[in-house]
Amino acid sequence: METLKVSTKSSPNSVAGAVAGVVRSDGEVAIQVVGAGALNQAIKAIAIARGYVESSGIDLVCVPAFAEVAIDGERRTAIRLEIQDRAHARSAVDPRASA
Amino acid sequence: METLKVSTKSSPNSVAGAVAGVVRSDGEVAIQVVGAGALNQAIKAIAIARGYVESSGIDLVCVPAFAEVAIDGERRTAIRLEIQDRAHARSAVDPRASA
Repeated sequence: METLKVSTKSSPNSVAGAVAGVVRSDGEVAIQVVGAGALNQAIKAIAIARGYVESSGIDLVCVPAFAEVAIDGERRTAIRLEIQDRAHARSAVDPRASA
Repeated sequence: METLKVSTKSSPNSVAGAVAGVVRSDGEVAIQVVGAGALNQAIKAIAIARGYVESSGIDLVCVPAFAEVAIDGERRTAIRLEIQDRAHARSAVDPRASA
């Protein structure tokens, strides 16, 4: 899954455009952030991206998880947001799909 | 949909417990936050809550949207996170369901 790194300085509109583009081509995309400011930009971007792809019949949902990353040699806790069309995600990761 | 208000001071573990409880009883819950610090606590809570309900066959997903709220008479932009079991959400809000 392609991973976009978003920072406090990222523009939510620009990130939303990137999210919409990757979701349209790959069906899913991940955003990785470290810190509350970066997470704020990422969530705004997802809210905006939902509107971008809605007319294509894509219903974006987001699944957050913790992730460990190394920044300048130090371990930091990041948040990873997996963003998928609801339908795509369901078939791909829903545990009941294989039950 | 029941709405939980989360602030910077909220404990992600406590919010996660509340999210899991409401999702188990109602199938869905919303979290409303104003500001990056509060959003950070809310997203951590959702990541934790995913683990709480996973063994019950609930696959939590989150849909972010902007919302206008009034705080002390001033209009502020809040983020509203709708949290649902993936299956429940799909049947409830997917625009294609009624097409």
